Amino acid sequence: MRTDLGMGRGKIAAQVAHAAVSAVLQGPHGAVFEAWLQAGQPKVVLKVAGAAELAELCGHAVAAGLPVQVIHDAGRTQVAAGTATCCAIGPALPADVDPVTAVLSLL
Amino acid sequence: MRTDLGMGRGKIAAQVAHAAVSAVLQGPHGAVFEAWLQAGQPKVVLKVAGAAELAELCGHAVAAGLPVQVIHDAGRTQVAAGTATCCAIGPALPADVDPVTAVLSLL
Repeated sequence: MRTDLGMGRGKIAAQVAHAAVSAVLQGPHGAVFEAWLQAGQPKVVLKVAGAAELAELCGHAVAAGLPVQVIHDAGRTQVAAGTATCCAIGPALPADVDPVTAVLSLL
Repeated sequence: MRTDLGMGRGKIAAQVAHAAVSAVLQGPHGAVFEAWLQAGQPKVVLKVAGAAELAELCGHAVAAGLPVQVIHDAGRTQVAAGTATCCAIGPALPADVDPVTAVLSLL
């Protein structure tokens, strides 16, 4: 999640929920997905400082072969239309995601 | 979303995402669901003061025939295991949800 857009906690929550739903609807639905559901669909919400760091993160995740969904806000409230606010990485195994995200801090 | 549990914005975002994913996976998948997806899967994040108000809200939503998913936290961080933190109402038509939620404020 970008922290430079001045979004309130409700707006942030909605963006993260968009990302999670997109990850579930558009990501792979094999054994990794089923294992993630069985584990209680764990999510870790991390922060990036801005658009450049978000883009860099997405690039690393794609290069690692991970499912990535970038969320662009419709712009009805708080941020300009089309702004990339956050991304979802996964569903995937922690051992595959952690090398990409370990540098980031919890939101 | 309950506001009485002292959860940070990242924790809140994860709970809302749990609720949204549960609503998508467990809710009805008919024309209303497809229309919601086509509209950009809109979400409105609202607040309740505590467990009693959350339970009352869920009761009203169930009585109105709406899909309701209550999220109970696994309790690994910040709140006690099994705590009901929030619920998802829908996917449903705004005309059906709004009478149940209109009394609540944005988070």
